[in-house]
Amino acid sequence: MPVSPLVVPFPKIPPIAGVQLATGRAGFYKHEREDLLVMHFPEGASAAGVFTRHGVGSAPVDWCKRHLTMTKGEGVKAVVVNAGCANSFTGKPGADAVRRVCSAVAKRFDCRQRDVMVASTGVIGVLLDDSKITHRLPEVGARLTDDYWAQAAQAIMTTDTFPKGAYAEATIDGQKVRIAGICKGSGMIAPDMATMLAFVVTDAAISPAALQILCSLYTRNTFNAITVDGDRSTNDTLLLFATGKSGAPKISRAGDKRLADFRDKLEGVLMNLAQQLVRDGEGATKFIKVSVTGAESHASARKIARTICESPLVKTAFAGEDANWGRIVMAVGRADEPIDRDKLSVKFGPHWAAQDGLIASSYDEAKMSAYMKKKELEVTVDVGVGRGSAEMWTCDLTKRYVEINGDYRS
Amino acid sequence: MPVSPLVVPFPKIPPIAGVQLATGRAGFYKHEREDLLVMHFPEGASAAGVFTRHGVGSAPVDWCKRHLTMTKGEGVKAVVVNAGCANSFTGKPGADAVRRVCSAVAKRFDCRQRDVMVASTGVIGVLLDDSKITHRLPEVGARLTDDYWAQAAQAIMTTDTFPKGAYAEATIDGQKVRIAGICKGSGMIAPDMATMLAFVVTDAAISPAALQILCSLYTRNTFNAITVDGDRSTNDTLLLFATGKSGAPKISRAGDKRLADFRDKLEGVLMNLAQQLVRDGEGATKFIKVSVTGAESHASARKIARTICESPLVKTAFAGEDANWGRIVMAVGRADEPIDRDKLSVKFGPHWAAQDGLIASSYDEAKMSAYMKKKELEVTVDVGVGRGSAEMWTCDLTKRYVEINGDYRS
Repeated sequence: MPVSPLVVPFPKIPPIAGVQLATGRAGFYKHEREDLLVMHFPEGASAAGVFTRHGVGSAPVDWCKRHLTMTKGEGVKAVVVNAGCANSFTGKPGADAVRRVCSAVAKRFDCRQRDVMVASTGVIGVLLDDSKITHRLPEVGARLTDDYWAQAAQAIMTTDTFPKGAYAEATIDGQKVRIAGICKGSGMIAPDMATMLAFVVTDAAISPAALQILCSLYTRNTFNAITVDGDRSTNDTLLLFATGKSGAPKISRAGDKRLADFRDKLEGVLMNLAQQLVRDGEGATKFIKVSVTGAESHASARKIARTICESPLVKTAFAGEDANWGRIVMAVGRADEPIDRDKLSVKFGPHWAAQDGLIASSYDEAKMSAYMKKKELEVTVDVGVGRGSAEMWTCDLTKRYVEINGDYRS
Repeated sequence: MPVSPLVVPFPKIPPIAGVQLATGRAGFYKHEREDLLVMHFPEGASAAGVFTRHGVGSAPVDWCKRHLTMTKGEGVKAVVVNAGCANSFTGKPGADAVRRVCSAVAKRFDCRQRDVMVASTGVIGVLLDDSKITHRLPEVGARLTDDYWAQAAQAIMTTDTFPKGAYAEATIDGQKVRIAGICKGSGMIAPDMATMLAFVVTDAAISPAALQILCSLYTRNTFNAITVDGDRSTNDTLLLFATGKSGAPKISRAGDKRLADFRDKLEGVLMNLAQQLVRDGEGATKFIKVSVTGAESHASARKIARTICESPLVKTAFAGEDANWGRIVMAVGRADEPIDRDKLSVKFGPHWAAQDGLIASSYDEAKMSAYMKKKELEVTVDVGVGRGSAEMWTCDLTKRYVEINGDYRS
């Protein structure tokens, strides 16, 4: 599989105090590759999560949601992640497999089952063979180290063409804290090779309640503002951990002023990771930012942006490097949101395509064609009725997408 | 452009008393082809219509809606249709062009402008050069004949790979009546080559009010139950005319018992036409019927069916002849409708893939693979919560779709 032309190099991520990582080969893939990640918080961590709202949530998602509620996100001790099997749509046997994995991990790290989080990605409808994981635990557990982020990002990949990581430093009350994250996903969600998974760890000391607020808040404009094909997974999981090992003071309110810089940097890390998912979108050759302004509300702007981002006709036009503003107009109209047809404007980068409901007088085919050849594109649409705005990110729809998704199992 | 492998031969359509047709070359295409259709009802016809609900309706759609309301659909005298230019997103100049066309047609047929219907299909955002149509009117008007359905269907094609027609006979009060229809569209809607257009004429005598009820009622499960790419056009138009020339008694209530057979046959004609649009879906190689049962309501079943039909991952799996029931489950889940995960069942044709939330015990990969090689496929999903059901038709998503839509303008 050739690496995406929109690849971002993996950043340097230093150790984060309070977490150790190790990877291994459980054997969910026939070919030689690592497919198992274990994260250990020896002294526990605050935890928060955002999960798929999909009607057919997977067994691991069920597990995390239930136990994060039960423990209120206090003192989480470990995370175990596998690629190659999503353990979704596997009923009670799937839930039992998760319990056995977590029980083994709990024994290994001398904690309660409920303090273990779990995430899976891979084929839907195949029961997780938990023995593949539990057999490897002693060996993987013995290799835990604090400097292993790149390998961790690699081990959770499925059809991803590059490992994804982000790192930032922030200051809390004059004290430096670190935020590191990895994620996987190719195709916003491609449930067969399933799922967006993201794991972010900071050494800041933050209460689980505050952490959950930040996690939910920033997901909205990052992971929930990207779309590759509109298909959501059964397994989507974002887990955020705070080990409290930086020495910075403990913060218990999300709104605490001392968190201002941390909040910015955390949002930056989440945005960086989210955008990497789009850059590795299946078959993607263009990274596209869609901005909608002038909508009746932010929610309305968001729906219009999403309709543009998910329109096959818009996405194929981008693949063809075609500034096809007619298709943008079509997508705006089919969002079924209030718009003023005679005020509608469309801009590709700095170039007006349409203004006030008509082709722009300054429309210049040559300039437009030159712009469309870029790898990173921006479309701005004003719908002329109010002050609602939204931004969303997507990629183009190429023959390669069809190839990847039409030939996967066969 | 190779003809769709799912092509349906054009049926024999006899003359329908009370309507005459002619086609010609207005010249919206550079290459030699007809792109103009004129239909004339010398003694007028009852008319009814269903139009795009798109927020950016085109000038011709605006015209038809306004004048059908104004005349209550009584005594419509003519329809003029062009391919090659949608006259959409063209503001006041576009509306003026439509008026000039209708004025010329009205003069030619000695009627009022409001008695002329109009429909356009082609590139969005390009103003209709009405002189191309009006210059041809005398010549085309002179060639009107009552036996010209096949050529009419041909003249309104854009990226269609075959002309689409349907014919049926019904009995009203012992008297035979005829129903003939043609339509165009390739890609449920591909606004660039834009639009679904359908014109259906019967020689039955039916009041406009009754005709409108039938038109709206049957659109729901026919034209509104198909999707190629989920992209709706600015120009979608279905017009239904009744000339009253068959000699059958005049019917003024849609519920009149004497209409029973007619209603069935009319629905059949609409369904036949609608399904031909899917069979000619851009790049289609499979014709797929999706049935959803066990939903909380019919509306809920419909939303689930549509989500399945429009999922890129489901559609690419069909292209790959892959009985990928995991993707069906994914699509069901992301419809955000009530379902019972542990009762969910999925069937491909007669073969169970999943039952009661798990892979079916009778699942047989070989049988499934053989089934998926067929050109016409059926997927049945039961979501296990109620009695709501719906059927919808779609096609697969192939590389050819991306090719057609990524390389169109360039």
